[in-house]
Amino acid sequence: MGSSGDDGYRLLNEYTNGFMVSQVLFAACELGVFDLLAEAPGPLDVAAVAAGVEASSHGTELLLDTCVSLKLLKVETRAGKAFYQNTELSSAYLTRVSPTSQCNLLKYMGRTSYGCWGHLADAVREGKNQYLQTFGVPAEDLFTAIYRSEGERLQFMQALQEVWSVNGRSVLTAFDLSGFPLMCDLGGSFATLARLVSKTRHGGRTQVPDTLCPLPGGPGALAKECLSLYPGCKVTVFDVPEVVRTAKQHFSFPEEEDIHLQEGVLVSVREAETCLMVSPSTGFCVCDVDCAPRFLGGGILVIESLLDEDRRGPLLTQLYSLNMLVQTEGQERTPTHYHMLLSSAGFRDFQFKKTGAIYDAILVRK
Amino acid sequence: MGSSGDDGYRLLNEYTNGFMVSQVLFAACELGVFDLLAEAPGPLDVAAVAAGVEASSHGTELLLDTCVSLKLLKVETRAGKAFYQNTELSSAYLTRVSPTSQCNLLKYMGRTSYGCWGHLADAVREGKNQYLQTFGVPAEDLFTAIYRSEGERLQFMQALQEVWSVNGRSVLTAFDLSGFPLMCDLGGSFATLARLVSKTRHGGRTQVPDTLCPLPGGPGALAKECLSLYPGCKVTVFDVPEVVRTAKQHFSFPEEEDIHLQEGVLVSVREAETCLMVSPSTGFCVCDVDCAPRFLGGGILVIESLLDEDRRGPLLTQLYSLNMLVQTEGQERTPTHYHMLLSSAGFRDFQFKKTGAIYDAILVRK
Repeated sequence: MGSSGDDGYRLLNEYTNGFMVSQVLFAACELGVFDLLAEAPGPLDVAAVAAGVEASSHGTELLLDTCVSLKLLKVETRAGKAFYQNTELSSAYLTRVSPTSQCNLLKYMGRTSYGCWGHLADAVREGKNQYLQTFGVPAEDLFTAIYRSEGERLQFMQALQEVWSVNGRSVLTAFDLSGFPLMCDLGGSFATLARLVSKTRHGGRTQVPDTLCPLPGGPGALAKECLSLYPGCKVTVFDVPEVVRTAKQHFSFPEEEDIHLQEGVLVSVREAETCLMVSPSTGFCVCDVDCAPRFLGGGILVIESLLDEDRRGPLLTQLYSLNMLVQTEGQERTPTHYHMLLSSAGFRDFQFKKTGAIYDAILVRK
Repeated sequence: MGSSGDDGYRLLNEYTNGFMVSQVLFAACELGVFDLLAEAPGPLDVAAVAAGVEASSHGTELLLDTCVSLKLLKVETRAGKAFYQNTELSSAYLTRVSPTSQCNLLKYMGRTSYGCWGHLADAVREGKNQYLQTFGVPAEDLFTAIYRSEGERLQFMQALQEVWSVNGRSVLTAFDLSGFPLMCDLGGSFATLARLVSKTRHGGRTQVPDTLCPLPGGPGALAKECLSLYPGCKVTVFDVPEVVRTAKQHFSFPEEEDIHLQEGVLVSVREAETCLMVSPSTGFCVCDVDCAPRFLGGGILVIESLLDEDRRGPLLTQLYSLNMLVQTEGQERTPTHYHMLLSSAGFRDFQFKKTGAIYDAILVRK
């Protein structure tokens, strides 16, 4: 250790420069490099890309060549001149026209998440998110901060759509859900509900209505995936009125008879003994929010990134847990932790499945 | 492509989350986690670390466990409780007491570089650095921006010391320099000089004095490494008065008879036919600044990260070139590009050596 050639120093440099790699990806997306190349009749040279994205020639060349090293672009040289085109990876994930595009997610990460993470040390010190420090927006009501403008709300909703366009299938096929003809997509509901309950517990003034669950969060991305996987099922998506309105305005729901967007609140789940509640990746468990007694039957599919039992990995799950600290609330948990929480709330038949991808699935029944 | 399990999607996520990994490292340094563990008599549990660095217990636990996954910490469990200690890597590079500590560099990267890189897309658009956008500091005179306060100047100088404490040896032993009894460390001089020359060329009002070279930049870090490798040589370090004063105040120069810190300007190199000019990693070549005619003899050791001949790698060098775009000026070059520039300026005996580490070395003579 202590010399420029050792493996430890190499690893340290890789970590140190990680943010540069992220920003190369984010900047190329933001500038529209991959869209320009997707729409072009053939590979383009530096001058054409620079003109197309309205950027400096020097900066564009550096960016393009770095994208080649990262396998985000391919290059071929004709008569001494370099011509660039998308790779399979960038075509699939970095062009707006692709059904698995991640462009909005990456723009959101490059601005909002990147900014908040610049205050990680403060988040660890204070044990709370850094919305106020990063954007001057009080984060008392989390979703008010996240949805702080129409543009931010739309981008966040589009980002969620993109996450589930790629990850929906693996979590919704982790178990056979064909026995649940009715599904409710609860979106980010538990995060908000947990805030309310937590405030009440700690003497705050907010009251959680006895029979109502305010359920903001999911704009119906998982619902569409459900329908394609389990034809004949019906899905209700609960969300706050602004989100439902934005979803109806900007997103298409071709099988709209089978997807019902419900503004505001889930009144009761009493009638739905065969209903499956889908709780996607919020860092909150249904038990965090004293919501369990309301479930009289049916099941809950919890979609989260599961920590290893010793809590020492996977790295991605740990980073997501820190992301919740920096940007939202909640945390990732181990399967045993979920089992304990869900069992003590009266749920049975605990099953979990690691999908091998980012998100895993837990199924319980009441 | 297009599914959560494919390699392309995994790679994309690795790039996307790179900034989180960087910030885990930066935040743990800033909080003083590694220093606390280095000073403790034995491994510490979460509560002790949280108390020691004055941070929340939840945030500290997440941070420590993520550091374990990154091999920055080791953990052992006793009676069901986790106890953390430094690894060889963190002991060598992340504790202030280590002679190869990189703490100041990482703090600088975590604040200044991370902030500027948040504007990469704009830097590529405009083809210029993002000091003004990031810190509200006009970057017309680059080193005025970098040295914008006493604290910033000291941190930047300490960061440079740390870079060369690890990287100095490999570049200074790439060639046998024992034939040069006199050495001049030019530090970041060419960056500033290039600005002046460029302004003059483009009709600006600043004049470069005929016989004077203003040479700010290096605080003597390489000089010390030179002395330990080539006993008996004498080194003069040129820098702006504030930098020299700060260096004398904060850095120790045990063999000070052999290191001479010279305020301000290199008056003439006429007398030094056996003098070696050391130009460390500024992204500028001596030929960029019309400085070549002043060299009557001796040699120049250019220390830079060399691009592959096809300019498609190494990735780290490309990122450094983008870093110059975002934070400073200049660019990394291929060996052939340097050969051409230096030959046309009358330098001969071009030799370059890839060290296998971050920085490579070029030696020419006049």
